[in-house]
Amino acid sequence: MNACIRAVVRIGLNRGCEIIGIHGGYQGILDRKFEKMDSRTVSKILHRGGTCLTTGRSKEFKTEEGTKKAARILTVDKIDGLIAIGGDGTMRGLAALQKYWDGKVLGAPGTIDNDLYGTDFSIGFDTAVNNAISAVDKIRDTGEAFSRVFIIEVMGRLSGSIALHVGISSGASAVVIPETPTDLDRIAGKIIKGRNLGKTSAFVIVAEGDEEGDATTLGKKLTKLVGENCRVSVLGYIQRGGNPSHFDRILASRLGAFAIDCLLAGSTGAMVGEINRKLVLTPFEETWKNVKEIEPWMLELMEDLSS
Amino acid sequence: MNACIRAVVRIGLNRGCEIIGIHGGYQGILDRKFEKMDSRTVSKILHRGGTCLTTGRSKEFKTEEGTKKAARILTVDKIDGLIAIGGDGTMRGLAALQKYWDGKVLGAPGTIDNDLYGTDFSIGFDTAVNNAISAVDKIRDTGEAFSRVFIIEVMGRLSGSIALHVGISSGASAVVIPETPTDLDRIAGKIIKGRNLGKTSAFVIVAEGDEEGDATTLGKKLTKLVGENCRVSVLGYIQRGGNPSHFDRILASRLGAFAIDCLLAGSTGAMVGEINRKLVLTPFEETWKNVKEIEPWMLELMEDLSS
Amino acid sequence: MNACIRAVVRIGLNRGCEIIGIHGGYQGILDRKFEKMDSRTVSKILHRGGTCLTTGRSKEFKTEEGTKKAARILTVDKIDGLIAIGGDGTMRGLAALQKYWDGKVLGAPGTIDNDLYGTDFSIGFDTAVNNAISAVDKIRDTGEAFSRVFIIEVMGRLSGSIALHVGISSGASAVVIPETPTDLDRIAGKIIKGRNLGKTSAFVIVAEGDEEGDATTLGKKLTKLVGENCRVSVLGYIQRGGNPSHFDRILASRLGAFAIDCLLAGSTGAMVGEINRKLVLTPFEETWKNVKEIEPWMLELMEDLSS
Amino acid sequence: MNACIRAVVRIGLNRGCEIIGIHGGYQGILDRKFEKMDSRTVSKILHRGGTCLTTGRSKEFKTEEGTKKAARILTVDKIDGLIAIGGDGTMRGLAALQKYWDGKVLGAPGTIDNDLYGTDFSIGFDTAVNNAISAVDKIRDTGEAFSRVFIIEVMGRLSGSIALHVGISSGASAVVIPETPTDLDRIAGKIIKGRNLGKTSAFVIVAEGDEEGDATTLGKKLTKLVGENCRVSVLGYIQRGGNPSHFDRILASRLGAFAIDCLLAGSTGAMVGEINRKLVLTPFEETWKNVKEIEPWMLELMEDLSS
Repeated sequence: MNACIRAVVRIGLNRGCEIIGIHGGYQGILDRKFEKMDSRTVSKILHRGGTCLTTGRSKEFKTEEGTKKAARILTVDKIDGLIAIGGDGTMRGLAALQKYWDGKVLGAPGTIDNDLYGTDFSIGFDTAVNNAISAVDKIRDTGEAFSRVFIIEVMGRLSGSIALHVGISSGASAVVIPETPTDLDRIAGKIIKGRNLGKTSAFVIVAEGDEEGDATTLGKKLTKLVGENCRVSVLGYIQRGGNPSHFDRILASRLGAFAIDCLLAGSTGAMVGEINRKLVLTPFEETWKNVKEIEPWMLELMEDLSS
Repeated sequence: MNACIRAVVRIGLNRGCEIIGIHGGYQGILDRKFEKMDSRTVSKILHRGGTCLTTGRSKEFKTEEGTKKAARILTVDKIDGLIAIGGDGTMRGLAALQKYWDGKVLGAPGTIDNDLYGTDFSIGFDTAVNNAISAVDKIRDTGEAFSRVFIIEVMGRLSGSIALHVGISSGASAVVIPETPTDLDRIAGKIIKGRNLGKTSAFVIVAEGDEEGDATTLGKKLTKLVGENCRVSVLGYIQRGGNPSHFDRILASRLGAFAIDCLLAGSTGAMVGEINRKLVLTPFEETWKNVKEIEPWMLELMEDLSS
Repeated sequence: MNACIRAVVRIGLNRGCEIIGIHGGYQGILDRKFEKMDSRTVSKILHRGGTCLTTGRSKEFKTEEGTKKAARILTVDKIDGLIAIGGDGTMRGLAALQKYWDGKVLGAPGTIDNDLYGTDFSIGFDTAVNNAISAVDKIRDTGEAFSRVFIIEVMGRLSGSIALHVGISSGASAVVIPETPTDLDRIAGKIIKGRNLGKTSAFVIVAEGDEEGDATTLGKKLTKLVGENCRVSVLGYIQRGGNPSHFDRILASRLGAFAIDCLLAGSTGAMVGEINRKLVLTPFEETWKNVKEIEPWMLELMEDLSS
Repeated sequence: MNACIRAVVRIGLNRGCEIIGIHGGYQGILDRKFEKMDSRTVSKILHRGGTCLTTGRSKEFKTEEGTKKAARILTVDKIDGLIAIGGDGTMRGLAALQKYWDGKVLGAPGTIDNDLYGTDFSIGFDTAVNNAISAVDKIRDTGEAFSRVFIIEVMGRLSGSIALHVGISSGASAVVIPETPTDLDRIAGKIIKGRNLGKTSAFVIVAEGDEEGDATTLGKKLTKLVGENCRVSVLGYIQRGGNPSHFDRILASRLGAFAIDCLLAGSTGAMVGEINRKLVLTPFEETWKNVKEIEPWMLELMEDLSS
């Protein structure tokens, strides 16, 4: 996200704007945690994970009263436009704010799960998948040394996007995701077949939001079906953070630059995104009304490679 | 490249093919360094850099006599199709072979420089850029501690693609690439301006094939213009190798799967590629007759962010 | 462990020995999974995690009958000496074997937990701690962005060695280890004090074998005491594996070289180790009768840095 | 170095001291670039490479006049003691300062080359070697794919410590260091022998200060002797920087803690260090009068493993 903030600040300043950073997310508006940003403020953050502006959840902002208060503060402080980076909740927050505030509002997709409609990739997703496969590569070393079956849980409450990317990238026997029905007998069959062919270890990648349960639950079921103790590993928070990949730094910079230019051109009420490498704006409402679908070629490729 | 080989092998076997790996590139055909591949041959290579089939240059194959000999060997050994992964030279080799051999030939783009027309990204490029920015991030630590100017040379004999990706990703003051005229006075001006604003260090990213010379030459010129000793670092071979990123593993798997399916469907004489996330075939000749251009938005973004 | 195997093989060959690798640990003796090793067998393994010889647990070997059978096989196959790498269980296995077999037996310490008496560091420990702090560094990015408290569980059933090294290295507020009494009120006090001083996030590192329970249990208790939802992350298997550090490669090479030289000099019944950078042999029995103690300066340093 | 600064600050504050950070090395004293440090100043630096206090060289300080001026400033500003982290030059600077200033002065070893007498390891060395072997591991991927010989230059103007550690860790055919005579014919013989045995690639690790010349010079000589184009790679600045290893963070913290405690106990005129895991003080003069020797077991181990 730092790369996106940096692009908004630097390019905004180039265009003659004054840029104010808000610390702590929407609550930061209510608490007036404003910081005037200049070129130096963002000079050493491009290669850092996390965000130089902290973030957080705000119960107060979610109430109508809170939203109105935030709108009043922005008006009083003579803010002309607001760019917020985040997921579903961030876009809903901007849409709510728009009702009571006449400044321009634009969103940028920053959710690790990559579940936002309106962009091929969210900022942070590429880094998260690289973090995850680097962890899976390590677990694979153990798996091969000990001839074990591993059930590895990755992020994705509503979306199997991380799981599917990790599954193809790490040579998993199967991925278990909310978008497709989960057939544990079939997965167990694949693991047993691989074992019979002399495969020394096997992996199943599980999205945390699968309808059959989390990795621990699936691990117990598969242990019975496979007849062998399946180990469970929940990657959790290590998927976030770390130095971002070039893909994320460039995507974030590009979306940040686009956001500030759209704002100055008068756009409002939409999320910036990149689809098929082209920049697009998607109205807030569409980002949550539409479901982002898994690309069919990915499911086929996963199936083809693990058969 | 391992991920691409793995996809060709696994999916080829699924489709009922017999798959023969060739060790040592085109010379390996002449030396009949063939290995029958099965599912296990490619079971532990997905996360490794390099290639499980070694590669190399062949002077003999480049002669008409050598090409004819390779064609004879492939015919005698009843090979029906050949998929080769590589750059410009690989595609030219396939095109030459096609004149004397009636098997199907397809290429897959595997060149770190990302200079092949017919695909947005070559296999290995994403990993190389991540390797490069990770090195630049380290150099930046030294740069900031010692308040220094660094001239960093990355790969790219004909193309500034790596340099531009690294430049945007690492917050460089400028990138110096063969596709655009190099204005050293302007670059020196930027570095001096940054220094005057209190910036503690600066980077210039140079593609090895720039018309103004390599990093050492540029370093000397900039040292004079800036009035401060500019340090030079040539990243070189560390840009290759290392565990591949998920992007490369998926791209390679997808292109490998596409190549084997195209081959079985009768396609020949073309390179597989991905453009705007769609799979495409590009006839060999077009891959070297056309010049792959730098996307204008990247140049603009670089300019905007470093001003 | 690969580096240790490589040293034993290479140096053993240099000294004129014939070297046989055993796959699958002690069970591999019973199953006669022997492989003749030469210099090339170990030529590409130095930088890989895991082991080129697989490992595993053997119930059969643990019975007196199994041990005797293994001894018979080693005698029949004219093995003169056995070097095994592992932890407590490996050393006990060697000691048992010695009763029924007159070959020389030596052990090398290869346990991530670093809980073996007779060496300052076990092979694999340094890499495991680096893997762990790299994961904690990532979690810290999230912690700082979201202002959160994290309870992070690392390996160490009987030993707080990993936890203490990670705690000092990552700037934890506290470490919770089996060797010292755990005072949750005190830890909560430190976190609250830090929060009051404006610290945006806090970490507690927990060894899996602490007497107060695992990270989940401790997380619940601390959540109550701190009055803020403490997040739990269990690093688990990602601590193993990955490319080994130079420290581990050198330690493993040095211990492997020492083991083969001791064996040829007639030593038996002991574990090789390094104490204060000097090579030592410790009789098997002492490795499990004595408890490896945490160095007092580490506890003091941890305390001093987190106050 | 950040970990060392952090330890000095935190523990100094715990002991009731007031701590002033000096930016820009000795020049920073002359320019009075002082910053009062508190616990928060050093709260997010432990895992970062580089130094939160910048560094640099000072011509003025090296003159007698400059040293006297620095002494005056420290006296006027009522500084009681000075702890400086660095190499040979830093220790000489402290010794010079001591002549004109009656505050306590202590040094901590912070030089990547690990050439300081008085400590087994300097702060930063462990991380630098890990950075180097990670680069060599990448180059090895290329080496094996292309069957090439690589000459890789690492840091070490006066010392082969990095080269020897990297050589053993990466399975090099030979290391070329200033401490031992360089026999190129013998090295070429080893490479040729390995090639004849089917080894696909080979590495020679060269310390930048070897008496036979730098890697480029050696590469040319070896190319002739081996009869094959030897590629040269100079690792350079990428060996510095990056997130420090746990070893360096703990060593730096321990030495920092020891330095502040020694200072408060009245010690002066010495460098803190760790020898055989014990803390020691070495008078400044001895640190440069004595030559730090390469441990003989390392040379033997390198020889044994590469024969």
